[in-house]
Amino acid sequence: MNLRSLPNVAVELTIRPHDCEHHSDSNAFPGNYDMGKVLVLFHSHTGSTARMADLVAQGAGLIPGTDVRIRKVAAATPDEVYWCGRIAFGSPTNMGVLSWQAKRFWDEAMGPHWGKLDGKVGCAISSSGGWGGGSELACQSILTVLMNFGFLTFGVTDYASPSMTAHYRAVAAKQPRDDDVQAACRLLGRLLAEWVAVVADVRRDQHPLNKPESRSLPA
Amino acid sequence: MNLRSLPNVAVELTIRPHDCEHHSDSNAFPGNYDMGKVLVLFHSHTGSTARMADLVAQGAGLIPGTDVRIRKVAAATPDEVYWCGRIAFGSPTNMGVLSWQAKRFWDEAMGPHWGKLDGKVGCAISSSGGWGGGSELACQSILTVLMNFGFLTFGVTDYASPSMTAHYRAVAAKQPRDDDVQAACRLLGRLLAEWVAVVADVRRDQHPLNKPESRSLPA
Amino acid sequence: MNLRSLPNVAVELTIRPHDCEHHSDSNAFPGNYDMGKVLVLFHSHTGSTARMADLVAQGAGLIPGTDVRIRKVAAATPDEVYWCGRIAFGSPTNMGVLSWQAKRFWDEAMGPHWGKLDGKVGCAISSSGGWGGGSELACQSILTVLMNFGFLTFGVTDYASPSMTAHYRAVAAKQPRDDDVQAACRLLGRLLAEWVAVVADVRRDQHPLNKPESRSLPA
Amino acid sequence: MNLRSLPNVAVELTIRPHDCEHHSDSNAFPGNYDMGKVLVLFHSHTGSTARMADLVAQGAGLIPGTDVRIRKVAAATPDEVYWCGRIAFGSPTNMGVLSWQAKRFWDEAMGPHWGKLDGKVGCAISSSGGWGGGSELACQSILTVLMNFGFLTFGVTDYASPSMTAHYRAVAAKQPRDDDVQAACRLLGRLLAEWVAVVADVRRDQHPLNKPESRSLPA
Repeated sequence: MNLRSLPNVAVELTIRPHDCEHHSDSNAFPGNYDMGKVLVLFHSHTGSTARMADLVAQGAGLIPGTDVRIRKVAAATPDEVYWCGRIAFGSPTNMGVLSWQAKRFWDEAMGPHWGKLDGKVGCAISSSGGWGGGSELACQSILTVLMNFGFLTFGVTDYASPSMTAHYRAVAAKQPRDDDVQAACRLLGRLLAEWVAVVADVRRDQHPLNKPESRSLPA
Repeated sequence: MNLRSLPNVAVELTIRPHDCEHHSDSNAFPGNYDMGKVLVLFHSHTGSTARMADLVAQGAGLIPGTDVRIRKVAAATPDEVYWCGRIAFGSPTNMGVLSWQAKRFWDEAMGPHWGKLDGKVGCAISSSGGWGGGSELACQSILTVLMNFGFLTFGVTDYASPSMTAHYRAVAAKQPRDDDVQAACRLLGRLLAEWVAVVADVRRDQHPLNKPESRSLPA
Repeated sequence: MNLRSLPNVAVELTIRPHDCEHHSDSNAFPGNYDMGKVLVLFHSHTGSTARMADLVAQGAGLIPGTDVRIRKVAAATPDEVYWCGRIAFGSPTNMGVLSWQAKRFWDEAMGPHWGKLDGKVGCAISSSGGWGGGSELACQSILTVLMNFGFLTFGVTDYASPSMTAHYRAVAAKQPRDDDVQAACRLLGRLLAEWVAVVADVRRDQHPLNKPESRSLPA
Repeated sequence: MNLRSLPNVAVELTIRPHDCEHHSDSNAFPGNYDMGKVLVLFHSHTGSTARMADLVAQGAGLIPGTDVRIRKVAAATPDEVYWCGRIAFGSPTNMGVLSWQAKRFWDEAMGPHWGKLDGKVGCAISSSGGWGGGSELACQSILTVLMNFGFLTFGVTDYASPSMTAHYRAVAAKQPRDDDVQAACRLLGRLLAEWVAVVADVRRDQHPLNKPESRSLPA
């Protein structure tokens, strides 16, 4: 599979029906999340991060059995974060850190759910105004937020081209126009979905959220 | 289970026999690693990080079925990194970044193995000269290295005491003497082992390292 | 001078009169800022960061000739950032990164002034829920924002006590109740003011903002 | 002055004679450093960081009155760090962090001088294997080290081209072959030298190192 040869058309994802009731009593993960469900959630000013989000979703869709949903933070709900097992979170690089709109989603909408979402897998997407403009640092700030929520994150070793990688998540300078930047976005999405398939739930009883008696969160 | 009430004695870990042949053809993960095997690997100048490493190992040993090995970087081999499925890496906070000795292990000993170890789970341990002295930043530098190798890492939401946590891995000011710092170390180890049990290998065929045809690493 | 023995009373600062007209034609720095003017600007949820801001201001006031102003971000204006030569910016540690309210100030209120403020000196203040809870990382995110605006920042080598420093700016776990945390806050403020006196404006003609013909900012 | 039109030839710098006696009793900064002296210090594996160091030195040489010296870490001495007022420190991006050889210089050679060098101005240079490969994070690790030593650092707002900047210091993917990457390197050097001219020593008595009675370093 050559990530660079994929047609650069609008994303067409088959989104399977799903529900968001995260308090059902299934025997799955706490909150009933499904590792096969990928949420690509983003804030975008200029459309660059939005375009990257599309490409990441496209990459995630390459792995059979993955259910991908794309949402803007302004329209997203905590239920959708409960719903997914994996999350790719995108923000423009604003002053080297995720945008305040992107941060507000985690501080305000998600804050009350902190401590109830541990164990999902997350990665970051960001577009800056230029190379050297802080997109790696903005991704780092996103990962810091995701890890605060108890998420796992992962590194990417693969290169999308001889001079483009996503070691610390997908980055771009302005629009992801170059083939290799687009390939890096798809690569990140594919990896996110691959870990969906590999990293799964063998001993659910050992999930920290299934052992409330052993936890100590602030009141 | 109260992590703060554990006796603060020398660690006694039952280390099961194992071998380090990482090129066997078992049906396990690439390189034949076992997610139940935890390597606590560290560099220590003054003994503070070494003591923290002991406590993390003690915490990991709390989860049945976990096989824990402790090693100093000076004596460790790449085989031991292949061996483990999980790794807690410790370094003193030297100028806000992991020590050069700790870094050399990854640059030199492990460099030739880069791209062959993806998918292990790692976390960081560091002791600085004082609170505010850079231990969180040093842990961040360790996580950056681990993610570069394609490892997953995870955030910790739990608090070890009302004023002590390990959100971004175990940290201490000098020796981990206080009960709550010790509890935070054990907590990190326990979490590392819990993820061993939860996050496992359902669809090994989808592991990136099992699909060499889809990867593109630099020559 | 013993920073730990200062009375822990409410801050009483002699704020000298000033004006905010930053477009006057003085022969000072671009925007007419004065390196002797210190702005302590913060967002606080619980009052912890506010208390730290007071202590930093108290420390800055220890250096004669320093003019200190304290402001909450909700009430601050870009004029006040133009006014000062030095800025200590405080935010609670929210998910390991500055709060969205703190970030919004830089993204929205200050965004249009980006590229016009280079050369001020800044430092960071943050309080987290516990040691290990991300306050160093939150300070790092603040410094990333400040550097994006072309500010200088500085490291602190001094220790406030044998186990407390402010290498990467002032941090606290919850309220800055302990003597050594309070001393670290005052120390940071004093250093900020000391650099005011030391680092000054000898060759104003060479200030980047005084050479617009040599600059290239995005349109 | 157009940084992109400079001839891309080997650097020719007029290095003025100087001495390294840093314990003389001049009335200059502590240790007798001279803000007009710039040290470009680097470690390089493949030559990419070395080439970037040349370009940064070239940029610094654009400001009259600047004395530039280039050194490899393997050949550098603490005296040379005392000598300079400004330092640009370069390292390859190795696993997202400065190389162990670069770190060893600060841990071992410079460690005994920690606390005696406060107030110099520093910036970072790094080349990674590809865009998105960690060069911003490696620069961040360098800045963390420099701030630990009490150095000031500064952000760069200017763009070297519409899609290339050095907000968080000079970065490149492999060799700095493209015009805009080269321009960004020169830009960083020029800025470093400009701050030399602007930020100077008005009230030397207030320099923290000139007030030993007010300091508290660990024994």
